Amino acid sequence: MKPTRATVALIQMSCTENPKENIEKVCALIREAAQKGGQIIVLQELYQSLYFCDVEDYKRFSLAEPIPGPSTEYLSELAAELEIVIVASLFEKRAEGLYHNTAVVLDADGKLAGKYRKMHIPDDPGYFEKFYFTPGDLGYQAISTRYGKIGVLVCWDQWYPEAARLTALKGVDMLVYPTAIGWHNSQSEEVNDEQYQAWYTIQRSHAVANGVPVISVNRIGEEGEMKFWGQSFVTNAFGKTLNKASVDQQEILLQELDYSESDSFRTHWPFLRDRRIDSYAPLTKRFIDDDTQT
Amino acid sequence: MKPTRATVALIQMSCTENPKENIEKVCALIREAAQKGGQIIVLQELYQSLYFCDVEDYKRFSLAEPIPGPSTEYLSELAAELEIVIVASLFEKRAEGLYHNTAVVLDADGKLAGKYRKMHIPDDPGYFEKFYFTPGDLGYQAISTRYGKIGVLVCWDQWYPEAARLTALKGVDMLVYPTAIGWHNSQSEEVNDEQYQAWYTIQRSHAVANGVPVISVNRIGEEGEMKFWGQSFVTNAFGKTLNKASVDQQEILLQELDYSESDSFRTHWPFLRDRRIDSYAPLTKRFIDDDTQT
Repeated sequence: MKPTRATVALIQMSCTENPKENIEKVCALIREAAQKGGQIIVLQELYQSLYFCDVEDYKRFSLAEPIPGPSTEYLSELAAELEIVIVASLFEKRAEGLYHNTAVVLDADGKLAGKYRKMHIPDDPGYFEKFYFTPGDLGYQAISTRYGKIGVLVCWDQWYPEAARLTALKGVDMLVYPTAIGWHNSQSEEVNDEQYQAWYTIQRSHAVANGVPVISVNRIGEEGEMKFWGQSFVTNAFGKTLNKASVDQQEILLQELDYSESDSFRTHWPFLRDRRIDSYAPLTKRFIDDDTQT
Repeated sequence: MKPTRATVALIQMSCTENPKENIEKVCALIREAAQKGGQIIVLQELYQSLYFCDVEDYKRFSLAEPIPGPSTEYLSELAAELEIVIVASLFEKRAEGLYHNTAVVLDADGKLAGKYRKMHIPDDPGYFEKFYFTPGDLGYQAISTRYGKIGVLVCWDQWYPEAARLTALKGVDMLVYPTAIGWHNSQSEEVNDEQYQAWYTIQRSHAVANGVPVISVNRIGEEGEMKFWGQSFVTNAFGKTLNKASVDQQEILLQELDYSESDSFRTHWPFLRDRRIDSYAPLTKRFIDDDTQT
């Protein structure tokens, strides 16, 4: 039977350069989140390490692992033991010289319910992801679990209305964004605020446009010249913030979601009803150069 | 030569049931806006009448007019005299029994630079637009004028990331939304705020996603059981609010826009660079029912 509600738990934390420490920390936090009633536990992007894409360094490929592999193994054991769903972001080694930024979903019986390979890969100073990650080739995913159908996207995907829409159209109960975004030390408070507001705004807009809750989990802590801005949050299916974490504290954010709200918001604000699908084909174009006018 | 900046003027006002009064008011406000330096004057949705779609009444079709017609005539004269661009929302009678919700753009020499027929048509209690308006068949428009290339969309379009994206991909300098949205008298303050925030959020998100300023012009005033919520606003090309009007006062909101900011935001936040156009074809589907997973 399709679940109608669930409690999500967002784990926002800092990381060290020692993966073992990060894994021990996250496992303790997952246990605590489950004990507090969390049923779907969402981890931040690449939680097992520092955000290693700040430089292009061949050695860092050694952080990657196969999927399934050691991480899905310990996550699977935890998921089965605690009867929870876990959404986790991993550095996937798919083959020699072929790496992805991949999110996995473990179901409450410990099985790997599905995986998503980050489709949109950034490349900016301090975020050299195109060096490490091949863009995803699995498309957008709706992953069925005991506690709901999960649409998982990763970080840079959060800026793309197309990714949110395509995932929502697969009938998910929520959109989930593991993420790692921060401010460079050199920036002014004004620029910091503008960037944060843009990030917060566009993700809430995906809830509004699609009538689904949005869950975004961001890391905290200073790493080199970057301060990750935390502020993980959950919205309802109309973009209203239900719960939000601090800028710099480790937190487990718990929020119950009532999936029936999607139908209520979507009938009162029937955006899906009125999409002009006959006119959307040019969304597959890079740019529309034709300057002729009617 | 392509203009690099311009001052937009948003005219937010109440309307009466007498079109002549509304036209006199708007003409006076257009003159005032031009005198204050406005170069691109944007009017709210269907500014010549009360928001007549609150009921389904055949008599109200008599409010419509051809385009070009009487309204484009007086707007054209004003535009040429004052050397301003005007964006105006009209009720178009295209043929017997064929009506549209259409925005026109008059260039600063008085010529009709282009028109856009509202693509997404709502139908909700109090907003019976599907009764009056045939959905637009001109697609999304980039309308070149003396003061910039204008992407105009209308009201319900504002909830659709697809409409914003398709218009932005045509190389516009700004997205403009004439609109008419309000709160029903029966609603609580909490619901009012949630609705307003959703509206404000999704429009700012179009600026973020597309790297263009967004201009939204909403009516004020109480009409029957509806209170239009005003709060017309302008954002920069990263979704930051530059100027915003009140909930219930008549206002001319002036804001200078520097079009070069689009390139700056789009290179610092290169969302257009990384769109996965190879994966967007299913955006033309109503829903993606296939439940198979990888």
